[in-house]
Amino acid sequence: MTNGSSDRLVAVLTAWVRDASAGARLPSTRALVAEHGVGPGTVQRALSVLAARGLVESRPGVGTFVRAQRAPQAVDYGWQVAALGAPRTDLRALPATMRTGAPDAIALHSGYPDPSLLPERLVRSAFVRAARQEAALQRPDATGLPELRSWFAAELAATVPDDVAPPTLKDVLVVPGSQSGLVAVFRSLVPAGGVLLVESPTYWGALLAAKQAGVRAVPVAHGPDGPDVDALARAFAETGARAFYGQPTFANPTGTQWSPAVGQAVLDVVRQHGAFLVEDDWAHDFGIDADPRPLAARDDDGRVVYLRSLTKSVSPSVRVAAVVARGPVQERVRAVAGAEQLYVSGILQAATLDVVTQPGWAAHRRTLRQRLRDRRDLLLASLAEHAPLVEVASVPAGGLHVWVRLPDGTDVDAVARDCEAHGLLVAPGSGWFAAEPTGAFLRIGFAGPDPSAFGQAARILGERVASATP
Amino acid sequence: MTNGSSDRLVAVLTAWVRDASAGARLPSTRALVAEHGVGPGTVQRALSVLAARGLVESRPGVGTFVRAQRAPQAVDYGWQVAALGAPRTDLRALPATMRTGAPDAIALHSGYPDPSLLPERLVRSAFVRAARQEAALQRPDATGLPELRSWFAAELAATVPDDVAPPTLKDVLVVPGSQSGLVAVFRSLVPAGGVLLVESPTYWGALLAAKQAGVRAVPVAHGPDGPDVDALARAFAETGARAFYGQPTFANPTGTQWSPAVGQAVLDVVRQHGAFLVEDDWAHDFGIDADPRPLAARDDDGRVVYLRSLTKSVSPSVRVAAVVARGPVQERVRAVAGAEQLYVSGILQAATLDVVTQPGWAAHRRTLRQRLRDRRDLLLASLAEHAPLVEVASVPAGGLHVWVRLPDGTDVDAVARDCEAHGLLVAPGSGWFAAEPTGAFLRIGFAGPDPSAFGQAARILGERVASATP
Repeated sequence: MTNGSSDRLVAVLTAWVRDASAGARLPSTRALVAEHGVGPGTVQRALSVLAARGLVESRPGVGTFVRAQRAPQAVDYGWQVAALGAPRTDLRALPATMRTGAPDAIALHSGYPDPSLLPERLVRSAFVRAARQEAALQRPDATGLPELRSWFAAELAATVPDDVAPPTLKDVLVVPGSQSGLVAVFRSLVPAGGVLLVESPTYWGALLAAKQAGVRAVPVAHGPDGPDVDALARAFAETGARAFYGQPTFANPTGTQWSPAVGQAVLDVVRQHGAFLVEDDWAHDFGIDADPRPLAARDDDGRVVYLRSLTKSVSPSVRVAAVVARGPVQERVRAVAGAEQLYVSGILQAATLDVVTQPGWAAHRRTLRQRLRDRRDLLLASLAEHAPLVEVASVPAGGLHVWVRLPDGTDVDAVARDCEAHGLLVAPGSGWFAAEPTGAFLRIGFAGPDPSAFGQAARILGERVASATP
Repeated sequence: MTNGSSDRLVAVLTAWVRDASAGARLPSTRALVAEHGVGPGTVQRALSVLAARGLVESRPGVGTFVRAQRAPQAVDYGWQVAALGAPRTDLRALPATMRTGAPDAIALHSGYPDPSLLPERLVRSAFVRAARQEAALQRPDATGLPELRSWFAAELAATVPDDVAPPTLKDVLVVPGSQSGLVAVFRSLVPAGGVLLVESPTYWGALLAAKQAGVRAVPVAHGPDGPDVDALARAFAETGARAFYGQPTFANPTGTQWSPAVGQAVLDVVRQHGAFLVEDDWAHDFGIDADPRPLAARDDDGRVVYLRSLTKSVSPSVRVAAVVARGPVQERVRAVAGAEQLYVSGILQAATLDVVTQPGWAAHRRTLRQRLRDRRDLLLASLAEHAPLVEVASVPAGGLHVWVRLPDGTDVDAVARDCEAHGLLVAPGSGWFAAEPTGAFLRIGFAGPDPSAFGQAARILGERVASATP
């Protein structure tokens, strides 16, 4: 260990201490070693320096703690209230699924797979290789790295039937994650204050993106095989909407995969109404009993605007997704996305391309499929055993979650809070509805940390639901 | 070289070829070696595979070329025109400064420093280290990595006088680049269709962000020491605006640094009108004759919303910036930015923190200062010698550009096109004005590639201006 790493750790910890409350415990030596990639000796030296400066005190066998330093400052920012006025849209600061709960809680609320389900070796080595490439120091083209755009086009092209022209690099725009993509697409397709039709329930991030884009999300009922096509046609006729947002493949939260017949019928309805289908293929890599069947592959007139994200399956550090769209809409989305972020980090794009073009990527996806199946089945069995009042609407053929229904009239937000008080985090279903929830739903993830806790989780949930049932 | 790298290269090149026109020349072996980090043998093997598949043909001594494959497809996307309707805002797809010109042109149009001016060794080793950390596989908090937020707060706190409470981690939001930050801040501070006051001229990206945010940018005249304070006060009174966007430190494009007196006067005017100052400190690391003096450091009532980006000084692959703001506005910006992108890649944050906490970072900045000075002075001398009709308004005390004025009535867009035809890329000044340009300006960068071409560049510019002068 050089003096450099020690000095650096001192700087980082000093900053940390400056912002921490007096009495806060510093991370353990082991945690600091892991986080900063330094040896335990370096950590000890850095902590000694901080102690010598009076910033921390060590209690042997207990830990290292922040010493009290400054009197707190009280400043009145009241003038800002008038200057800010009412917010443009009512955005919640942090959705329920993005919360970080108590560290010892069983966390089945998150939308992201546990790191143990990610291709760790591929990701780490991809970043090491990308660090040596030009991408580490150069600004890529605003539309994305050509090779990555080609890869996205080729992946979709692989499922295109013979009578449809396959997408090419020119149809692909790389965006920094699907959330940015959704906002840009909604802003491009729907006029301000206009209507976007959405499945009900649907992904909370899409509802948030619609608000951010200044667009009104109007729900369309959903059945076991996809959207209710008659309801969709009526909604188009009534609202004059120009776009419908859906997740044909393992929808979040329901896990539904649209049947081929429903998919075709949706395409027909969308076409009859001169509208676009926004296809969010977020779960492309999360098939369990079925394979993804992108509707965009059947698109021969620029009807489908297709979103494909790699953030959840490669790594959350990889904020990379693609919008595949043909015709004038591609230009429109490109201008809107470009105005928001100019371009996407080249090193993220290079590392992503590296991961998905390694032979290990296909192998990882095969393993992942089996592991997701095991986890899903374990969660379903645990719920059946310990939570008899919790009804699993349908077994998801893919994705990361089970969508469950509690007895009618149950206050799901109260159940979720009650579960959290008992050490279990689940997501109340209300966040997935554009209007009133149509029942008492929860979303329970099976891709979070530690599946061995599923039994305990189901027990907690079963008890809390039983005690809450009206 | 393993078979793996060869297979990968085959996949990448196949995708490339699929999208290229027949007859297109593939990158040279040397270029492929550099870009993909493989040996020349691997490249040769991959090209042989492609040739065997009939995708390319090699012409010895000339290069490798794409063979004609498919008849082109013609699809009519005309229906999209009606579905899309008029765009919400008139966004240009790609600003002039973001263009990639001919590879042999002298490129003085870009807003990004040449890779040779970046801390290459620090960036590459930071990404290698970050690849080993948790950040490579974990989703960070939506507000950013605590240590990085602390670093941003500490950097600004270092210049805070004794009577002002220094910013802390809680006041910092990490955003994926300053463009996203600007859009989120404008959207948070200004109601839809409302007025944002801006310096004139000002950064084109801010004007683009204002459009994207649905905000009307109203220009305020600018002098050699900063904005015209009387004009600013009148503009606030006339428009009822709640926010003023400015670059107190080495403004883009003029290079101006606001004098301390003007800075204080601006703060006073902003306060009198119950408004915010949005301070864009984009050139914090690009001081030449002067040091940055953030006005946010003098802010004691949440008046200043401060943007600090590291993209240009660390690496364009590092899309990391901070919004420092205190009071309710912090929550507002956080909600708006979060709805757009949820969170910022953890590995980008970890690598950024690594770079700026290395001892080499301070050393790099000292070297950079000298190199920017040499380049600026060389460009100024070249212009003085070879382009007598080009007037340098003032010598920039920092930043990456010289803002020059051509004889009144010169068509700067025509001059820029004419220069490009003669192998020189410069940026016409019209992009930096919210309304009509107030003169015939060009922005010429001195941080682009190859300063030894500045003499040649000045000669081309001098001749083109002379031939264009009315």
